[in-house]
Amino acid sequence: MAETLHSVDPTTGAAFGDPIAATTPEAVARAAAAARAAAPGLAAMRPSERADLMRAVAAALHDHEDDIVALADAESGLGETRLRGELARTTGQFEQYAAHAETGAVLDVVIDHAAPRATPPRPDLRRLNIPLGPVAVYAASNFPLAFGVAGTDTAAALAAGCPVVAKAHASQPATAILLGTVIAEALDKHGADPGVFTVVSGFQAGLDLIRDPNIKAAAFTGSIAGGRALADEAAGRPEPIPFYGELGSLNPVVVTPEAVAQRGTALVEEFAASMTLGAGQFCTKPGLLFLPEGHGLDDALAEAVRAKEVHPMLNGRIRDAYAAEAARLASHPQARFAVEPSAVDDGFAVTPGLVSAPAAAIDGDDALLHECFGPTALVLTYADTAELQRVLPQLPGGLTATVQLATSADPVAQTALPLLAERSGRVIVNGWPTGVAVTHAQHHGGPWPATTNARHTSVGTGAIARFVRPVAYQSTPESLLPEALHDDNPLGLQRRVDGRMEPVAEA
Amino acid sequence: MAETLHSVDPTTGAAFGDPIAATTPEAVARAAAAARAAAPGLAAMRPSERADLMRAVAAALHDHEDDIVALADAESGLGETRLRGELARTTGQFEQYAAHAETGAVLDVVIDHAAPRATPPRPDLRRLNIPLGPVAVYAASNFPLAFGVAGTDTAAALAAGCPVVAKAHASQPATAILLGTVIAEALDKHGADPGVFTVVSGFQAGLDLIRDPNIKAAAFTGSIAGGRALADEAAGRPEPIPFYGELGSLNPVVVTPEAVAQRGTALVEEFAASMTLGAGQFCTKPGLLFLPEGHGLDDALAEAVRAKEVHPMLNGRIRDAYAAEAARLASHPQARFAVEPSAVDDGFAVTPGLVSAPAAAIDGDDALLHECFGPTALVLTYADTAELQRVLPQLPGGLTATVQLATSADPVAQTALPLLAERSGRVIVNGWPTGVAVTHAQHHGGPWPATTNARHTSVGTGAIARFVRPVAYQSTPESLLPEALHDDNPLGLQRRVDGRMEPVAEA
Repeated sequence: MAETLHSVDPTTGAAFGDPIAATTPEAVARAAAAARAAAPGLAAMRPSERADLMRAVAAALHDHEDDIVALADAESGLGETRLRGELARTTGQFEQYAAHAETGAVLDVVIDHAAPRATPPRPDLRRLNIPLGPVAVYAASNFPLAFGVAGTDTAAALAAGCPVVAKAHASQPATAILLGTVIAEALDKHGADPGVFTVVSGFQAGLDLIRDPNIKAAAFTGSIAGGRALADEAAGRPEPIPFYGELGSLNPVVVTPEAVAQRGTALVEEFAASMTLGAGQFCTKPGLLFLPEGHGLDDALAEAVRAKEVHPMLNGRIRDAYAAEAARLASHPQARFAVEPSAVDDGFAVTPGLVSAPAAAIDGDDALLHECFGPTALVLTYADTAELQRVLPQLPGGLTATVQLATSADPVAQTALPLLAERSGRVIVNGWPTGVAVTHAQHHGGPWPATTNARHTSVGTGAIARFVRPVAYQSTPESLLPEALHDDNPLGLQRRVDGRMEPVAEA
Repeated sequence: MAETLHSVDPTTGAAFGDPIAATTPEAVARAAAAARAAAPGLAAMRPSERADLMRAVAAALHDHEDDIVALADAESGLGETRLRGELARTTGQFEQYAAHAETGAVLDVVIDHAAPRATPPRPDLRRLNIPLGPVAVYAASNFPLAFGVAGTDTAAALAAGCPVVAKAHASQPATAILLGTVIAEALDKHGADPGVFTVVSGFQAGLDLIRDPNIKAAAFTGSIAGGRALADEAAGRPEPIPFYGELGSLNPVVVTPEAVAQRGTALVEEFAASMTLGAGQFCTKPGLLFLPEGHGLDDALAEAVRAKEVHPMLNGRIRDAYAAEAARLASHPQARFAVEPSAVDDGFAVTPGLVSAPAAAIDGDDALLHECFGPTALVLTYADTAELQRVLPQLPGGLTATVQLATSADPVAQTALPLLAERSGRVIVNGWPTGVAVTHAQHHGGPWPATTNARHTSVGTGAIARFVRPVAYQSTPESLLPEALHDDNPLGLQRRVDGRMEPVAEA
């Protein structure tokens, strides 16, 4: 039976619009072949030409903002304000990655001139990065735009010079198709090969895509189970390909006794806000709050969480998994519900929750150390610094870890911070993990199971490097070298020459 | 039955010295646990302190040069001259990677100051690389020193700040133990944790090592079958880890008609020398020579190859595989022996060989496109540029590809060079692929099956980056930041600050 997708309104649970046929195996193969055919042309563009193409895509997305936001809201229930912000972030990613690639930072040009009198003599060697080829992007549902088919992975792959075949998330099939149409029109208007970007839909299409020999790398944002299955497919191919999966994260927050004393009530309010943002469906949701014994914030915490508005979750499966996982956490012998979450008879809506336990409950026992995707968090009460020293190294790898402290001399913070850095991709002081700035220094990644490869980020300009590989040219006459490797630096690139970085400023 | 290893003299095939017991599963686990315990101390060292430690290791290897070279020669038959050169390269790798790490290039510091008035506002974000943790290094047999237990992978991992558990190659068990002892003494003298470097031996120990939860990355140089098996183990662990395998490569060489006319006889001599270097047991051996139809060099080629001295191969298994693979190539319906190789009744010695076929034989048929490890190469005769355009894209991924041309305006070279760059990690003009300079611009890697991940090099300072991962610090007070991220740059590191590379020169 052919697979069919449906748009569903999370606020009612009702399907709407026309059913959407899943992409056939033949059409997936055609999309991958078209991407392969488009690859040399995209790779041959100068960085500035590719940047122009990306800016054209960003402009087209911006031009269709109203339609995109309305449809994404209808399929996700995330609300217009949030989705307008997300569209701005999405177009901003295209613009920022384009500008970064334009500086030559992605090419990472290294030139070592010949040293004929060295022992042993060294030939002239010049290296630059080239695109890997067609990239499969698996869209996430929790950020239909910023991590969707036109999200950070797609922007990064295009900035690297790789065509993209993007697999729509089943919860937002119509939004994905609209984004695909808008981008296809922009490519066409710009005179670009249509194989540069295609959207495919359906579970089987996702599997067909990762197995397609024309696909040379893949990026994914989603669950540990889904990500692991695709990572195993990528590693098991006759020709293995790099797979960049961003999976689950607990995002622990350690509050020191001094911070409780200084601003306990404010912290409780901020925590509840961060934890329930987007119905708790952020990769960076603070899911684990460490409070010192005797913190006296139990009532305030429960009240702050209960006061949060009810929001629909993205789909029925996520809602059901949320309820089940919250119940499982609270069923631990040392845990209890401080606030019991519940489903609401209103589409996929749920109420937020809190589970409490002593920190000792995770010492040698990982039953409580699983992400509960949705607006429920675990509050762990720790006895002292020695207990933190014992339990923090037992946390699974995570995207982020946060310390709330009073002063930089705070002794608990001084112990906790290096232990958290050891297990995380990003450490935050006196802030909250939700909200991921798209900058050069950003790292949105972390040790397994936060990602399938801790070396890489999916957000920030560093994300582009996932999709390139080096090629070195030895003793090659200048007229046969890529322009980027010419001695006189005609493209004005940032380069390392004979071991020294040349001081070329960014535009 | 307990696994036992034996030193074998390749020039006679006779075992010598005491049998060496394989490392027990318990001892492998102890080595990995000791590496894990040593990791924080190694990671906490300043780059300059780690560089000093690496220089001490290099000095110790140099001090024991006579013993190391004698034992490596007895176990490999590669000859004293070659092995003295290889030891110099090995110590050079330690010194060069140490010096590179000392500049801060490996830390890759990126600082984005806060932009509170941006939309959305951006927090202060600072990123640096930290070591991944204990690395398993699988030694190769064809370079007992430069790619052995103290080879480029070990030097790169230590420069990154990762302890190493190195698995000896079965063909050089005593050399590996000697290298391990020399390094252990150097570490001890320097006051370093002995867990920083350990050698293990045996097939099962290699498997136990890749499965050990304390191991956080692995590097391998060897066969496609062995590398793929370990890559699958690494990807299939409960916690997958990065695996860097450098496997097989054909290293094609395209000679243009103009180059034949200009210096055909010299090229034939140079090719025969490169192809038979180290008994053809280089990863970069030119295994595929494209000559234009009517080249007239058949006799010169056969003569040059026959004139090469007989050398022992590394072990009996490699010798047998060599003979079998050469015979398989020559049995192809379109191929024939131009020079038939043979085993010599003298240890593991073999004679070199040549197989000839028309280039059309590889069009749509990959039977001839398998590496023959040893001193036999395939000569393919091509009709014209159109034929090269058709067959070169069908080559498997390789470490290198070479073009021999007369002038940079050579039309055949202009066609071939970009096609070869597409399938290779390093392109060479008018040189030979054997000989891999250890420099910044070097790339010793390439598309599958040359490596398991085309993004990485195992030689050159770029090799260090395989063993680190980024951590970002958000809004963190300076006193809680690693020294490398302080605003005033106390370590004098190369950094990207607010998007611009700071012009700090290398020492």
